[in-house]
Order: sequence, then C-alpha cells, then structure tokens
Amino acid sequence: MILLDGKKVAQEIRSKLRDSVTFNIEKGLRAPKLAIVIVGHNPASETYVANKIKACQEVGIEVEKIVMEESIKERELLAMVRRLNRDKSVDGFIVQLPLPEHISEAKVLTAIDFRKDVDGLTPMSMGRAIQGLPAFRSATPSGILELLQAYAIPTEGKHVVVIGRSNIVGKPMAMMLMQRPYLSLPNMSASALGDATVTVCHSKTRRLGAICRTADIIIVAAGSPKLLKANMVKEGAVVIDVGINRMDDASFPRGYRLVGDVDFEAVAPKCSYITPVPGGVGPMTIAMLLKQTSLAYSAKVLGLKMK
Amino acid sequence: MILLDGKKVAQEIRSKLRDSVTFNIEKGLRAPKLAIVIVGHNPASETYVANKIKACQEVGIEVEKIVMEESIKERELLAMVRRLNRDKSVDGFIVQLPLPEHISEAKVLTAIDFRKDVDGLTPMSMGRAIQGLPAFRSATPSGILELLQAYAIPTEGKHVVVIGRSNIVGKPMAMMLMQRPYLSLPNMSASALGDATVTVCHSKTRRLGAICRTADIIIVAAGSPKLLKANMVKEGAVVIDVGINRMDDASFPRGYRLVGDVDFEAVAPKCSYITPVPGGVGPMTIAMLLKQTSLAYSAKVLGLKMK
Repeated sequence: MILLDGKKVAQEIRSKLRDSVTFNIEKGLRAPKLAIVIVGHNPASETYVANKIKACQEVGIEVEKIVMEESIKERELLAMVRRLNRDKSVDGFIVQLPLPEHISEAKVLTAIDFRKDVDGLTPMSMGRAIQGLPAFRSATPSGILELLQAYAIPTEGKHVVVIGRSNIVGKPMAMMLMQRPYLSLPNMSASALGDATVTVCHSKTRRLGAICRTADIIIVAAGSPKLLKANMVKEGAVVIDVGINRMDDASFPRGYRLVGDVDFEAVAPKCSYITPVPGGVGPMTIAMLLKQTSLAYSAKVLGLKMK
Repeated sequence: MILLDGKKVAQEIRSKLRDSVTFNIEKGLRAPKLAIVIVGHNPASETYVANKIKACQEVGIEVEKIVMEESIKERELLAMVRRLNRDKSVDGFIVQLPLPEHISEAKVLTAIDFRKDVDGLTPMSMGRAIQGLPAFRSATPSGILELLQAYAIPTEGKHVVVIGRSNIVGKPMAMMLMQRPYLSLPNMSASALGDATVTVCHSKTRRLGAICRTADIIIVAAGSPKLLKANMVKEGAVVIDVGINRMDDASFPRGYRLVGDVDFEAVAPKCSYITPVPGGVGPMTIAMLLKQTSLAYSAKVLGLKMK
C-alpha cells in the first residue's frame, strides 16, 4: 500500500510555479494577479481566503483582496464582477462562497467571464469542460487527476466509482474521468487522464457495497465520516478520500480530529494506493487554484490562447 | 414486453403544444417564434431543417429560416447570433450544425444567449443544467426522460447504464439521470426524473456485458449497429435505443433499412420495456425542440422567469 502524498505533490507544483513566476519577472514581465472578492465576514470564509492569499504570495502571485459588506446589493456585486472581467491587470478572480442569502450565487457565477474563472465553478466553465473545450476546471477534481498522474496511475479502461454528486466534486469528477483525453490548456497535463468507465453513486444508490467492490478506483466525496468500509473495497483498489469531517477527540489540541469519508485503518491494507486525510486531496485544491491563475496569466501575457 | 411508442408520445406533446399556442393566440397574444440559421447547403442539414420547420408549423410556432452562404466569415455568423440574441420577437433560435470548417462551432455556440438556446447544446446551457439551474436541455436526453415518464418508469435508485459519451446524448443524459430532481423550468415535468445510479460506458470500457447485466435501465447511444446483445441484458430491464444506423437491404424501397444500436429481435423478449427504431427516441427529439421553444415563449411572453 502506497500513500498518495498530496502535500508533497502540491509542494512540487508550487515550487515549479514559483520558478516560472520568478523567470518571467526576471525577463521583465509582470507577476500573475488573482483578485479575491469576499462578501461579509463569515469566519470560515475569512480563513479560506487568508490561506489562499498566503499560498499565492509564496509563489509570487499578486493578490488583490476585495472586501464588500454583507449589506451590499446584488447589483453592486455584479458590477464588481464586470469590473474584474474588464480589468486587464487581473488574470483571474474568484468570488468566495457562500454569499449572503439576498444575493443569487447562480447569477453572480454566471456573470464571471470563463477566461478569468480560475476556480472553474461557473456554469460556462463546467459546460465548456464537459464539451472538451478549453476551460478552467473545478479545483478538487482536477487536483485529484494531478495526484493520480503524479503517481502514474492510469485511468483508461478502469472502472471508477465516484460516491457523491455535488456540483463542485462529484459531477465534474465524473465528467473528467469519462471523457476522451484532451488538452484543456497548454501545460494542463492532468487532462491527459480520462477514458474511464465511470459510475456515480449517491444517497439514493442501492447496493453501494456491491458496486464499489467492482471498482478499480473509488473516489469518495460524500461528506459522511468512514462511509467506505473494508468490505466495500476490492483487493488492490485505489482509494481517493475527499471527505474532511470533524470528529470529537479530546486527545487533540482543538478537541477534534479530521477524518475522511473512508474508514482508513481498515481500508488501507487492501489498497494499492490511498490518500490520507489530512494531507491527501486537500493540499491539491489550493495548488490547482495557483496553477490555474498561472495558466490564465500565460494565456494572456504569454499569448497562449483560450477561445 | 411493452414497446415505448415515441411516435405516439411525441404526437401527444405536439397536440398539447398546438392547443396552448391556439389558446394564447385567441387571447390576443402572438405565436411563439423560432429562428433557424443554416449555413451553406449541406443536403442532410437541409432535410433536418425542413423537418423542424414542418413540425413547428404544425403546432403553430412561427419560424424564421435564415440561410447564410457557405463562404460567410465567422464574424458575420457571430453578428447574426448577436442580432438574434437581441431580437425581442424571437423566442428561441438554433444554428444548424455542422458549420463549415473555417467557422468555430465552439465560438458560435458560446455566443448564443442561453435564454434562447432551445436546442440546449451550448456550453452555458449544459453547465447550468448540470448545476441544477434553469436551462434548456439537450433534446435527445430530455426526450428520453419524457418517454420514461409517459410510461411511468421511475429512475430513482435504479442502476442506469449509458453506453456512449457524446456531448449531445451520453454526457447530458448521465447528468440528468444522476442529479436530484429539480424544475428546470415551470412545466418542465420531465426533470422530475433523476436520482439514478449512473454508469457511463464507451469504446474504452472493459467487460461491457458484465456491466450491462447489472443495469435496470440501459440507454444505448453508441452509433454501432446491434451492439447490445441479448446476453448483455438482464431479464426485465428497460432498454432505450438511440442509434439510427443504415443497413443495406434490397427489400426496402431506398435500398437500406434503419436499425438501432440494439439487436432488437433478440433483446426485446427479455425486456419489460424497449424502444423500437424507428419510432422510439427519434420522434421525441423534435418534440422537445418544439416544447422548449414554447417554454422560451412562456418565459418571455407569459412572464415565467429564467434567471
């Protein structure tokens, strides 16, 4: 059994990005620039944004943090999105979710130009990705593809079972795995993976165990602690755990520990490869945001085209 | 074994649409209007367009056929798309594919406003549909859902195997079947189907037969004559055949007959329900175009909102 070390792979990606940013600056070009819009003061959102800013700064990506008050009107946020769509100094931008209830997330996401949608969460990006057109892709599934690729785990002809059907992970993950390999952008090597037979399971699925036992690769993104048990996994399977759940544990400094959607201790011995939680999929997600920001910059400043 | 009579169901839909168009006109409202753009003189495209125009006229939908020469520049077609996006008298429009090679289909489809994309083929429509947002949907898969619904065949918790991963059928079909039921638009009752466990198979799939034998519902859209054999189908399964292949047959007036992707004679006796070819899925597709044009009209003229 080999641990899929997302922390290490993410660090390698970040280190390569730092080198390329430095190289371009030495050539006299500007740094890539990401704008992050945050509405209100949700503590969890503030933590996520702080982590993203820190990660950007480490690789030399410039960040503009735009804080808007909870009370702003939807049209004010839409005006900001349009400003960022037009702003030539901004390569990519994200609007941190969730938004206050009086603002339609769908409307705001729909307004983002897909060429700057480095989070890959807008309907246009998702539709383009599904059709095999150049587009940024949802960070978590594309991070998972990068991780598989880093360990030279092929997906062609494999039976992959995805547990979970969220817009952010399950659905885009299934689409990426089933389609013909294509280049979403120059350098976007992870897109060379695909061609898998894909089954998507969820809360309405019957006989989940029997389906999982037929899988060569299982990707669990159900948000349900220890959902995947040892008797649901065939010998030699690859298991990817997207879950991050808090479990009370007084022996940990914060009073809880993080557990995934996989019963790790029991499942791991049966696997050829498995991700730990934390340190597996999680670190790949921010790395993908950085990578896609850098790709947006390359597309614009270096003249590589998305059309 | 019960035949899923797409011809009959499509006629019922068309008859309801005709009644509602007539009703609105008697109230003093205008008729729905579809514009169809055709570039060049591809004979197959001309036949398809002629069939669509005839079907529209039968239900009272006004049609504007716009013929552009093969030699037009991409920007001229894009200008036409933008004109139609703005034209308040046009409820929906389609650009008949394929386009001449010097014009990017992706660029043209991307330029169509999703509120008028009654073919449901643009990246934005597909992305919105996947995210559960109101959107028009690809005609063939939504016709299949209507057909299942007409025969009260539930999908919740069923294992559905989709063979084929095209942008037009396989991928959107899989997405519609796996997601939580939602209302894509008021009246869009077919969207009440979903919640299935979905497996997508294709040319790279290994052990296709074994996977199909676990399916409650099999949807074949592979473009491969008689691909699905009797030994791949479990007793009592529902089989939907999207294939339309020409087979040489001197006993038919045109020298060929149409066969599906299913070995019908052998498979049918094992099925609870099966579609014939022709007369199954085919007639549903144009019916969906009419229905979605009518929905676009309702959304605009009757004030039902897509946002």
